[in-house]
Amino acid sequence: MSGKFIVIEGLEGAGKSSAIASVVTHLQAKGIQAETVREPGGTPLAESLRDLVKKKWDEKVSPTTELLLMYASRVQLVDNIIKPALAKNRWVIGDRHDLSSRAYQGGGRELGDELLEKVRKITLGRFTPDLTLLLDVDEKKGLERARERGELDRIEEEDLAFFQRTRQAYLNIAAKDPSIIVIDANQSMLDVHQEILRAIEEYLF
Amino acid sequence: MSGKFIVIEGLEGAGKSSAIASVVTHLQAKGIQAETVREPGGTPLAESLRDLVKKKWDEKVSPTTELLLMYASRVQLVDNIIKPALAKNRWVIGDRHDLSSRAYQGGGRELGDELLEKVRKITLGRFTPDLTLLLDVDEKKGLERARERGELDRIEEEDLAFFQRTRQAYLNIAAKDPSIIVIDANQSMLDVHQEILRAIEEYLF
Repeated sequence: MSGKFIVIEGLEGAGKSSAIASVVTHLQAKGIQAETVREPGGTPLAESLRDLVKKKWDEKVSPTTELLLMYASRVQLVDNIIKPALAKNRWVIGDRHDLSSRAYQGGGRELGDELLEKVRKITLGRFTPDLTLLLDVDEKKGLERARERGELDRIEEEDLAFFQRTRQAYLNIAAKDPSIIVIDANQSMLDVHQEILRAIEEYLF
Repeated sequence: MSGKFIVIEGLEGAGKSSAIASVVTHLQAKGIQAETVREPGGTPLAESLRDLVKKKWDEKVSPTTELLLMYASRVQLVDNIIKPALAKNRWVIGDRHDLSSRAYQGGGRELGDELLEKVRKITLGRFTPDLTLLLDVDEKKGLERARERGELDRIEEEDLAFFQRTRQAYLNIAAKDPSIIVIDANQSMLDVHQEILRAIEEYLF
């Protein structure tokens, strides 16, 4: 059986990390070893870009700069890690991918989905995940959870309106793309994980 | 009199640094204080990107990643340094700008000028230098000079064919753009500087 690329998406505090652990365990039980990757990051250069993008600078960071750094990191990860893994029929589980840029920079930063589509085409071509699971959480609830975890980075410390726009962009894009499954992440963790595993069984097996 | 943005371009070893010093001195003699900037770099974030782009990585750096990092650095410099300076009617002299990406990544890395045009439009919009002086040097001669200066960075250590493609792209683009003046940098430094100052007088005063 050929490898698949599954992406877990959602706002800060949506429960992505525990969802990924649950997916990995589920696949393991089926005899599938999956690699996990995170964005931005996942290669030495991409992790350096992650540091730069999360750091709080004295200068203004242009939304366009932020966008370019996200895609620079993504191209390194796709070319050097994800594509080689898929070519060896391995499965890859991604903590964020292209949809994050469309939601955060396209929606939150208001660069717009048309511009994002152009950048995606230029940088990634036709490469796209097999399945994306969008953990949709109330933005206030998500931010509360993220704050409980510790100090916020440059993007996490944006105001609530930013995360409202980001959430809305996530949902708008998902509504038009059948490869993105929206999971209500306001439910109990058990219910969330059950829905995720059901989606994986339904769409990938 | 309003501020102008002059860019000095060319291969490694073309003599950009001494040309910039000569332009600054010439403008000073006319009572114009000019700021000098370099690319990639020129702001704290952009200088960090310069380090990443020049560093030799164990992983392959995708031409697309390199391109995105160059534009990320450029957007920070344009938004935070160049545009504010021009708005205060100051002159800015740039050591490389957009034309470098079109020559090195578009030509040298063979991403092509059509893709580069798209990226420029998305990231910089209509922003463009008032005058670009392209110091055209024989690629072998330029590389020899660069090697004499010390250890080469990740891009400088490319093979001769890369710099031949880069030089050809520089010349092809210049042939179609009247705001780019080609200066024969194989001449003596004195002759090069005289041509540069003549071009500045002719096109900007």
